[in-house]
Amino acid sequence: MTDIRFALAQIDTCVGDLDANADKVMHYTHLAARSNARVVVFPEMTLTGYPIEDLALRATFRKAAWDKANWLATKLAADGLGGLYVVVGTVGTDRENSKPRNRLVVLHDGVVWAGYDKHFLPNYGVFDEFRIFSPGNKSMVLDVDGARIGVAICEDIWQDGGPVAELAKENIDLLLTMNGSPYEEGKTDTRFDLAVRRAAEVQAPLIYLNQVGGQDDLVFDGGSFVVDTDGTLLECSPMFMEDLSFFDLDTSAEHQKVGTIAAKPDPDEEVYTACVLGLKDYMAKNHFKGVCLGLSGGIDSALVAAMAADAVGGENVHGISMPSMYSSDGSKDDAADLARNLGAHYDIQPIEPLFVSFQHQLKLEGVAAENLQARIRGVIVMAYSNSKGLLAVATGNKSELACGYSTIYGDAVGGYAPIKDLLKTRVWEISRWRNKAAAAGMGIGGLHIVGNEQGSAGVPLPDGVMIPVNSIEKAPSAELRPGQKDSDSLPEYALLDQVLAMYIEHAHGRADLLADGFDEATVDTVMRLVDRAEWKRRQYPLGPKVTALAFGRDRRLPVTNAFRE
Amino acid sequence: MTDIRFALAQIDTCVGDLDANADKVMHYTHLAARSNARVVVFPEMTLTGYPIEDLALRATFRKAAWDKANWLATKLAADGLGGLYVVVGTVGTDRENSKPRNRLVVLHDGVVWAGYDKHFLPNYGVFDEFRIFSPGNKSMVLDVDGARIGVAICEDIWQDGGPVAELAKENIDLLLTMNGSPYEEGKTDTRFDLAVRRAAEVQAPLIYLNQVGGQDDLVFDGGSFVVDTDGTLLECSPMFMEDLSFFDLDTSAEHQKVGTIAAKPDPDEEVYTACVLGLKDYMAKNHFKGVCLGLSGGIDSALVAAMAADAVGGENVHGISMPSMYSSDGSKDDAADLARNLGAHYDIQPIEPLFVSFQHQLKLEGVAAENLQARIRGVIVMAYSNSKGLLAVATGNKSELACGYSTIYGDAVGGYAPIKDLLKTRVWEISRWRNKAAAAGMGIGGLHIVGNEQGSAGVPLPDGVMIPVNSIEKAPSAELRPGQKDSDSLPEYALLDQVLAMYIEHAHGRADLLADGFDEATVDTVMRLVDRAEWKRRQYPLGPKVTALAFGRDRRLPVTNAFRE
Repeated sequence: MTDIRFALAQIDTCVGDLDANADKVMHYTHLAARSNARVVVFPEMTLTGYPIEDLALRATFRKAAWDKANWLATKLAADGLGGLYVVVGTVGTDRENSKPRNRLVVLHDGVVWAGYDKHFLPNYGVFDEFRIFSPGNKSMVLDVDGARIGVAICEDIWQDGGPVAELAKENIDLLLTMNGSPYEEGKTDTRFDLAVRRAAEVQAPLIYLNQVGGQDDLVFDGGSFVVDTDGTLLECSPMFMEDLSFFDLDTSAEHQKVGTIAAKPDPDEEVYTACVLGLKDYMAKNHFKGVCLGLSGGIDSALVAAMAADAVGGENVHGISMPSMYSSDGSKDDAADLARNLGAHYDIQPIEPLFVSFQHQLKLEGVAAENLQARIRGVIVMAYSNSKGLLAVATGNKSELACGYSTIYGDAVGGYAPIKDLLKTRVWEISRWRNKAAAAGMGIGGLHIVGNEQGSAGVPLPDGVMIPVNSIEKAPSAELRPGQKDSDSLPEYALLDQVLAMYIEHAHGRADLLADGFDEATVDTVMRLVDRAEWKRRQYPLGPKVTALAFGRDRRLPVTNAFRE
Repeated sequence: MTDIRFALAQIDTCVGDLDANADKVMHYTHLAARSNARVVVFPEMTLTGYPIEDLALRATFRKAAWDKANWLATKLAADGLGGLYVVVGTVGTDRENSKPRNRLVVLHDGVVWAGYDKHFLPNYGVFDEFRIFSPGNKSMVLDVDGARIGVAICEDIWQDGGPVAELAKENIDLLLTMNGSPYEEGKTDTRFDLAVRRAAEVQAPLIYLNQVGGQDDLVFDGGSFVVDTDGTLLECSPMFMEDLSFFDLDTSAEHQKVGTIAAKPDPDEEVYTACVLGLKDYMAKNHFKGVCLGLSGGIDSALVAAMAADAVGGENVHGISMPSMYSSDGSKDDAADLARNLGAHYDIQPIEPLFVSFQHQLKLEGVAAENLQARIRGVIVMAYSNSKGLLAVATGNKSELACGYSTIYGDAVGGYAPIKDLLKTRVWEISRWRNKAAAAGMGIGGLHIVGNEQGSAGVPLPDGVMIPVNSIEKAPSAELRPGQKDSDSLPEYALLDQVLAMYIEHAHGRADLLADGFDEATVDTVMRLVDRAEWKRRQYPLGPKVTALAFGRDRRLPVTNAFRE
């Protein structure tokens, strides 16, 4: 028997943008056909984008998605590609209860030829699928040139039983899975171990095709792969970029040939790239060309500025230094150096005269006066955003977000927060890595990286340093009163971040945290801060529900939604 | 056979406050015992508060709730109440998978005597229970003095099949249900119709005991009731207040005696009271004693101020007039009149000098300059909030929230938005009702209502008018540029609100909206505005997920959480 060539089309889709997503399927199918692929596999919910949240509940959207799948099948055939098996994801409708379904369809011979509905609907963490979709209850085996191809969608392989258990009895030659699996540190290994187990269960190689790209607050890392029944990695696509790779299935062979294996980035590069891709795609999908942000000379804003420059180019980054009477000269210099290194715009907007004007009326003291400074800066950042059409980016990190150590409507303003999920100690690590990458002339997979030996403005980098070392090494301070340090209000970050990791990520309670060896005072401080901070994160539109549908809890829409009826 | 007396303890619980909730159970059980009750029924998840969201996933919390139920059973017996059957809700744990369960327990004879786990877990609208809880799979019948009492929790009676279908075969004498059913306009009738159907199905009277009070962005309206098998309303508790009513079950009678039926408020009073209760409880549960808000002279801020005065007293309301060069004299007078009528604090903070200071540096034009004014006001409101420890309340209505017609970090600042779910035309209706209520000297169920013939400051109300008529009747304007009217940017509210109702509440698509008779230009304007506004509602902390648990999507915590380990 001859080989059957599978094309792994690891693409970046946009929620609601049926036209662009379908055009991308056309484009990649043409490319795949030129390389003699027989089957082309796309990610979960290719045509609709993923995750579509409550957009799935709109009947007009489901109708449009159905029409688009048919259009695509017809168009593929018209382009001479009807002989291929093009496997795409879309939204379907359960005929019994009119609920949406998470569907895989095969486009072949000019028609939507076969369909499979996702069986296990994840409803934990970032997933709300059981809430939205009705589950499928049938497994499906495709016949491609005599080979038996079983299919599954994402969560279907994460749970025991269900379609994979059925396919294990079906003597299949390959298990083809399409996924929308969001990035998370260390998840690559978890996915691989799982795939190995399922390949052994169905006694056939497994294709794990994952989505790539940022969608609202999720980042999909790609990293699609093929694994053999004995656990051999047969193919691995790169992370964080669109890619078309191939796998040749030889149904008569006991073991398959090993193909191309993309190198895995180191952990710092991986996290950095995830953040950059998230920002880049959020901007592209919401039509922003540039960002603005306050540059304090501190490490958070420095790292965010570097990420923004890598996402959209230094020339599209507008850094604003907003010194007060409490800002040190060092901080101002560090901010200016960073902007020059990145080739970013740099403006200085002193806030002292504005602070004086407010205080003439308000006469605030203590924390209220500190917050006033942060809020004046927020007003300035939003003025740049509104007048220049820029995305305001917030520079808060996970440690301060967890503890509520920020000013709402102040330093927390912004439409997107690139490092909101990085603890402060990680911010330092990643910043050091970014400097190393600049000095070493490293590229970042699929992304333009600003400044190797020189800044993108063409200015040589002093000692090859992109982010000023002082920003990384000095003691963190909000600089809202003389001599203020973060450590006046918070435990030292090296300790704080350890407690946060155990309390938040590992759900340790008070007794567990004490048993972990943390002292009582620290534990109580951190728990009190974290438990109160939810209030800051959930402001307006918190308010009573009076009508059938209020905004917030009972309407969950994607921010990015390109669907137009 | 003698009657069995059921006490319907319609109480207001607080999420996480195990101590206070248990104390309330003690208190109401004592009251019920004094009136010779045999069974006391409390709302869904009495001890933990409801909804507890991801707090349920914390093992330490579940352990504490379990300990509290046992403490309560012991304490009841020690107080001589061990002979009663006290039916409370709490969180349990599924022994098989360690997942939480939504549990009903009966405290009797000093022990936690019997337990039933909720079978149907709602996972739509405001509910996420399937996400959190593991479903129960056994029905339960209690024997109380020879009477057979079936039990069910909330959603269990909303779905066909399950425990109610089983109880229908059990020859029960009463179906006792505990509920946490959030308020929604018109829901009273829906609940009653459902209860009638279930009473007929099980051939026994049904007790529908509902929670009362505001919890984060939900309001529970109480309105507990008892219905007979033939659909006769036997008892009805008042809405929006704690209450202890009684129902005497005569198991030998074919039909039960009719008891006390509380009057139902008119639709405007109902909505107004829901909003006031939501705010009042949000403040109490988050330890705020007063509010601050901008008073523009417009109707939105006027209505919110009246609600706040009714919630916590005019003397705890801080109104701030923040006139600009574009504010009309009429607006300033209306704001001052309102504050006087409510007995509220009233400060004037002109924004023109602050605007001039910013413009000296920023030189903004157009919308950016308009937003600057709104944001200077936001800074002032938050300065009051921070310096005086007040809750900043946002005054936005549902029409402007839906269309994004507001300034983020400007008029949208606030921790709670009392009218965020009222369309603008409804704001006008409710305001007229509030004036009528003040003039007529009406009370509002369970709530202190400010100003009958006179304002609470003791000042006579001019013509009995609480909210200045001019605020209700003038054309709405943001007053951010000379002669500006809302209708420059939006369709007239009478039309806009109709389109919003069909587009949002009834999910009509573009074709449906045209078929509804709306003109194409209006439909396209409204759809475009609504589809874009999600971006404004979902700002920071939107950002990439990198670690196992990020804030936002995969951690869903109540804002109000009084649990301390």
